[in-house]
Amino acid sequence: MAEARSDFQQYLKEQAQHVEEMLRHIIPEEWDFPAKLREAVHYSLEAGGKRIRPVMVLAAAESIADDQGAVDAAYPVAAAIELIHTYSLVHDDLPAMDDDDYRRGKPTNHKVYGEAVAILAGDAMLTHAFYCVSLAAKQKRVSAETALAIVEELSILAGAAGMVGGQAADVLGEQGITSLTELNYIHLHKTSDLIVFSLKAGGRIAGAQPYQLEALAGFGQRIGLAFQIQDDILDLIGDEQKLGKKTNSDVNQNKVTYPYLIGLEESKAEVARLTNEAKALLLSANLANPKRLLELADYLVKRDR
Amino acid sequence: MAEARSDFQQYLKEQAQHVEEMLRHIIPEEWDFPAKLREAVHYSLEAGGKRIRPVMVLAAAESIADDQGAVDAAYPVAAAIELIHTYSLVHDDLPAMDDDDYRRGKPTNHKVYGEAVAILAGDAMLTHAFYCVSLAAKQKRVSAETALAIVEELSILAGAAGMVGGQAADVLGEQGITSLTELNYIHLHKTSDLIVFSLKAGGRIAGAQPYQLEALAGFGQRIGLAFQIQDDILDLIGDEQKLGKKTNSDVNQNKVTYPYLIGLEESKAEVARLTNEAKALLLSANLANPKRLLELADYLVKRDR
Repeated sequence: MAEARSDFQQYLKEQAQHVEEMLRHIIPEEWDFPAKLREAVHYSLEAGGKRIRPVMVLAAAESIADDQGAVDAAYPVAAAIELIHTYSLVHDDLPAMDDDDYRRGKPTNHKVYGEAVAILAGDAMLTHAFYCVSLAAKQKRVSAETALAIVEELSILAGAAGMVGGQAADVLGEQGITSLTELNYIHLHKTSDLIVFSLKAGGRIAGAQPYQLEALAGFGQRIGLAFQIQDDILDLIGDEQKLGKKTNSDVNQNKVTYPYLIGLEESKAEVARLTNEAKALLLSANLANPKRLLELADYLVKRDR
Repeated sequence: MAEARSDFQQYLKEQAQHVEEMLRHIIPEEWDFPAKLREAVHYSLEAGGKRIRPVMVLAAAESIADDQGAVDAAYPVAAAIELIHTYSLVHDDLPAMDDDDYRRGKPTNHKVYGEAVAILAGDAMLTHAFYCVSLAAKQKRVSAETALAIVEELSILAGAAGMVGGQAADVLGEQGITSLTELNYIHLHKTSDLIVFSLKAGGRIAGAQPYQLEALAGFGQRIGLAFQIQDDILDLIGDEQKLGKKTNSDVNQNKVTYPYLIGLEESKAEVARLTNEAKALLLSANLANPKRLLELADYLVKRDR
């Protein structure tokens, strides 16, 4: 874009850089295990991406406490959610799943390291996410009770009834999805659950009240769904170069999407409706500083990739 | 065997039954996710096995506290370790890994549910193990600090520098293992790490002192290694029917094993040496009731399958 980088874009970039710096050293260097496995983990962790989920952890902490201490305390959990997101991409890309050869313009993990190592790298990242959550408490910034509540929530929202369940519904339903209810199940669990986790975890670390955690969850569900519908839309109308992957791929595969089920214009209207509802919900929750979260909601639906 | 079932075998059977009863309901029934995924998880969780690792959690708790309350408090963690062990088998059996069609006489998970669902079922079990650990604290029987220490230890010993690292070393080294050092790395991480976790977690829950946790860990490393060497031996000399899988399979695949590297008699001597060392270590740690752990050590090397 030709316009000057906005304050929000600057914020997003800086936070993403902090997270990336952390990810580069996320597995202690003194841990002794095969170099190839370490390489495979870092290959995917450092493949770029917008780092939206970790930034949401940090922005949610800031929205509650508005001080740097709370944001600093949230970093290990920000890393944890990126580990979960990245492992899910590595496993989703496998031949038995989506069978993708490229992601963000680079060969996928299994194309470089082979399927066996890609499966194990995913397993290692998933397991290490829980190490990062325990680390947050070890650094004495987060109480054991709070860290354990985050462990529990991560195990639910990333597990069978969360992200993995959403992916399973997607894989199992490939040909048979006929209703918005089924599509919403997939979107809510594949996408919204990790966003809800990120927001609530950041909120918890900063000392959010239960009603504030509920508002963060409701906000997350809606922007997660909007994000996913926007993805469907971009995939249909997006510019091939900007997206860095073939557009219309979902249509080519006869994949059922929001535009397929309710039309393009209705899908756009739904994105706007969900985003507005999400923002209103957030504003009703008496947060110390919701600015970045509100900007994030707008950013997600205005992005062109 | 014709002889009467010993007191220890009765103990083992009863504890395994308790664990199996728990595993049948391990994912809350009200959790809404694809039935096929739930089925795939339970297919492997309920495929039998000796439930050695969960029994170790329970026996370790009993060794420290010698009261039923401590053992009861350890049940969720006993379930957690069986979830981890089972997920590792499901992923190891995949075509990209060991490519096994049968396990314990039944078709492997991916032969029944397909590779995609098998991968996801493994991911779901791994994630759910951490839910079970958090459950131990929710039931107010274990403090948040203890549960979080168990989360941390599980994430290390089941992760990149633990079990997953051992499996990666095995996969990556298939042709190139030439030394006992390399083989020990694989055995210690693929097998001993989860045993060490089980013993320490049970000990922690029952209030073990640091020096007792260390003794439990040293005991676990040695019996884990002995268990794995015994596996190599059984695979070489075992009776096909008793093992329920083809013997000599490791030799057929030119897989490097203990008997291959140091000979059969030396391997048997090593098993005996490690077991004795393990038992001596345990007896030096002033435990309230080490009986079951000592019996377990003997059982592991005397088993014929």
